Amino acid sequence: MSVALEGNILVTGTSRGIGLELVRQLAQKSGGGAHIYACCREPEGAGGQALRQLSAQHPGKISIIKLDVADEQSISAAVEAVKKKVGASGLNLLINNAAINKPASPASLLSTGKKDMMEVFETNVAGPFLLTKMLHPLLQSAAKSCSAAEGMSCRRAAVINVSTLLSSIEKCPETFAMAQMYPYRTSKAALNMLTSCQAENFRADNILVAAVHPGWVRTDMGGEQAPLTTEDSVLGMIRVLSTLSSKHSGKLLDWEGNSIPW
Amino acid sequence: MSVALEGNILVTGTSRGIGLELVRQLAQKSGGGAHIYACCREPEGAGGQALRQLSAQHPGKISIIKLDVADEQSISAAVEAVKKKVGASGLNLLINNAAINKPASPASLLSTGKKDMMEVFETNVAGPFLLTKMLHPLLQSAAKSCSAAEGMSCRRAAVINVSTLLSSIEKCPETFAMAQMYPYRTSKAALNMLTSCQAENFRADNILVAAVHPGWVRTDMGGEQAPLTTEDSVLGMIRVLSTLSSKHSGKLLDWEGNSIPW
Repeated sequence: MSVALEGNILVTGTSRGIGLELVRQLAQKSGGGAHIYACCREPEGAGGQALRQLSAQHPGKISIIKLDVADEQSISAAVEAVKKKVGASGLNLLINNAAINKPASPASLLSTGKKDMMEVFETNVAGPFLLTKMLHPLLQSAAKSCSAAEGMSCRRAAVINVSTLLSSIEKCPETFAMAQMYPYRTSKAALNMLTSCQAENFRADNILVAAVHPGWVRTDMGGEQAPLTTEDSVLGMIRVLSTLSSKHSGKLLDWEGNSIPW
Repeated sequence: MSVALEGNILVTGTSRGIGLELVRQLAQKSGGGAHIYACCREPEGAGGQALRQLSAQHPGKISIIKLDVADEQSISAAVEAVKKKVGASGLNLLINNAAINKPASPASLLSTGKKDMMEVFETNVAGPFLLTKMLHPLLQSAAKSCSAAEGMSCRRAAVINVSTLLSSIEKCPETFAMAQMYPYRTSKAALNMLTSCQAENFRADNILVAAVHPGWVRTDMGGEQAPLTTEDSVLGMIRVLSTLSSKHSGKLLDWEGNSIPW
């Protein structure tokens, strides 16, 4: 078993797709002292079944936390719960994975309204903004428990924002025709800016912040024609995360480690 | 009198600052057939006084329209009013200038809440998104009344989104320390993506779409220490707008015509 990642790891949006697979592979590949806080909106419903099963397969390694990143009170409650559990060790890795895409495909300009713009921004940007802000003290605690000479890493203290190739303004002329998706694209460009702001803001704390594009993945959101399996996407992402250092803070990388222009 | 811009021109956020100065200079410098639709939230209150005086100085050249870009019904009503006035000529130039910046300076992470993130996005991104979508048929009408061989220009049909240097993710490491402004920065990065999406979407219609950084300007928003007067900023912006062609569509330029990286 490789020990790519360690410590207390929190992942949002873990009831399915990339989030669920992140929890699965992190539970398998992280070190013996690692603990995964798997957050999702409805852990107790039918949607949370796969996550509950996964948790049962790894006794003591996964805590399931109820969290709706679009709900400020839900964020507060989840942060309090995590704070009590991690104690002075703090939080080593936060993966902001939860995201939505509205309206339904093909998401053209004509079918998109203000409500879509607002709701997608709320979940994809305001959510990660607030969750990261509230978890910042726990990330600081984790970062402080290492000596500054160790530099930045996802084992020490890091925030990973799950972005997308569609967030790239530079690439928009190439990608627009296949998926207009105004709400999703604008939200993810804003998430990239959030990543850059957080990277600058947290640099003195030795907290690494980066954005990752998981590839075009065969999930409910990615659709059936997507070329990449969730397994291969997450395999690549975890490999990339385990190699990140201070020079990657504030950058957008894909699941193979390639840099994507803003 | 130079005839830099022509036809029906709509500007948002015109009660003060850059928007008011845009109306002033457009009224002076546009051609004899030009008409300016100057939109602001409260044309009748004390805040609208300067705009009303300006309108009185240019009889028949400026129509003041009540518009709050954060209010969907207000957008619908303003679009209907403009539609009736412009008729078959359509709209030649839309300048999405209205914007807000919250919370108050210094707008640090600690002082910024979810409400700031949502409100700033609503005005700075959802507003221009919806207004441009609803004015698209009028822009198409204006574009069609020229022959396709004339190419793209702000005289034919164009959307200009007023952005900022602070929207640049690439420049964030240089600019973050002087102004954290998470809501403003994320909203303007999203506006840049909106610009790129609109540029692709409207290319076949021969409608030009670009984003412009007005410089750091001595306005209520820019503050007193800003190096640039509104006069010089708008002088530069109008000079840049009058030279734009299809090769600039989807780009971010400053008030001197220099390209800014995303």
